[in-house]
Amino acid sequence: MDKLPSPPPIPVPPELGPDFSARIAFIAEIERLKLVYRQNVTIDGSRAENSAEHSWHIALMALLLRDQSPTPDLDLFRVVRMLLIHDIVEIDHGDVFLYDEQANQGKAHNEQGAAARIFGLLPEPERSEFLELWEEFEARETPEARYAAAIDNLQPLLNHYLSNGVGVRKHNLAASQVVAKKRFIGDVSPGLWSLARSVIELSTENGLYRKA
Amino acid sequence: MDKLPSPPPIPVPPELGPDFSARIAFIAEIERLKLVYRQNVTIDGSRAENSAEHSWHIALMALLLRDQSPTPDLDLFRVVRMLLIHDIVEIDHGDVFLYDEQANQGKAHNEQGAAARIFGLLPEPERSEFLELWEEFEARETPEARYAAAIDNLQPLLNHYLSNGVGVRKHNLAASQVVAKKRFIGDVSPGLWSLARSVIELSTENGLYRKA
Repeated sequence: MDKLPSPPPIPVPPELGPDFSARIAFIAEIERLKLVYRQNVTIDGSRAENSAEHSWHIALMALLLRDQSPTPDLDLFRVVRMLLIHDIVEIDHGDVFLYDEQANQGKAHNEQGAAARIFGLLPEPERSEFLELWEEFEARETPEARYAAAIDNLQPLLNHYLSNGVGVRKHNLAASQVVAKKRFIGDVSPGLWSLARSVIELSTENGLYRKA
Repeated sequence: MDKLPSPPPIPVPPELGPDFSARIAFIAEIERLKLVYRQNVTIDGSRAENSAEHSWHIALMALLLRDQSPTPDLDLFRVVRMLLIHDIVEIDHGDVFLYDEQANQGKAHNEQGAAARIFGLLPEPERSEFLELWEEFEARETPEARYAAAIDNLQPLLNHYLSNGVGVRKHNLAASQVVAKKRFIGDVSPGLWSLARSVIELSTENGLYRKA
């Protein structure tokens, strides 16, 4: 990924204090996530989807599919916050395509550094709060993180189907590769996995993925 | 605005039921918000900002600036949900530029119809929930809606400044016009209004708005 442009400092009146000023610097910094492009495309095929609008979409999906989570007392606000911040680390190293095994090798290390730098722009308590939310999401252990990861992994399947695979066909993925990467959705939610399998199947029939 | 492309129906397994299927249809429908472009631009000036990524940005701003709300017991999850859905109505009629008085005349009527159509895709309880959140946001009466509106109106000022006015200069706005449209922020939050005034002032010095 080319280096993204840096936002200029926003003129914050000094009487608002250093914590307020730091929060505004973070808000300016994350403008850059709108320039982190993914392999998904918009449904008219005109451009790549970026990680900011992807995050918006999955936050809404999480609100709407909550009854598919096996945990009835899920903290949905925590899920939404996780999904809103989970890709901010991509500002430093870009979005790594799930199926690019080589590019994924350094990913965890790179993103740990990005999390320290970017969430480190924030004052407390937001710094710890956002870092904890991000680490919880990455670890996929709590019910909230598992449900969030399932939603985050379902959305590209829907997007590939809706955009007729304009972004994904060139990668020549096998349906079995897609199933292997997405199968964990079934451990989180049988309903979401049933949907995912149906979408993968029809996408394969439509030629988005290879039959293999 | 040109008519946006319609998403094809997603193959939802029938055993998941009609309510699940309706939620998925809504999730496909809102892909279209990524194609609703605003007068804001990305900070590299390469393209217009869309309403989906704008909604993501203000949801995060609301999380970070909560101590600027005058109401200590604000329901922040309600604010975030309002901001995530507030622009979905633009799918039918596009984003209306705040300063275009003529285009704003039919806006409320158009958006009421869009809200009925788009939120009407959802089953209960989400249909009523989303419609109520949208109506509450539009009415700007509750503390949550007032704070949400202040954040929604602050973001474009920051974006104009950060993108050096690439999107806004052509409109030849007077600083006084901008102040008139944004002044209500001060009724919600003196801190946010102090920031807004500082950003408008430096933007005007930088030639983004006319000195008048």
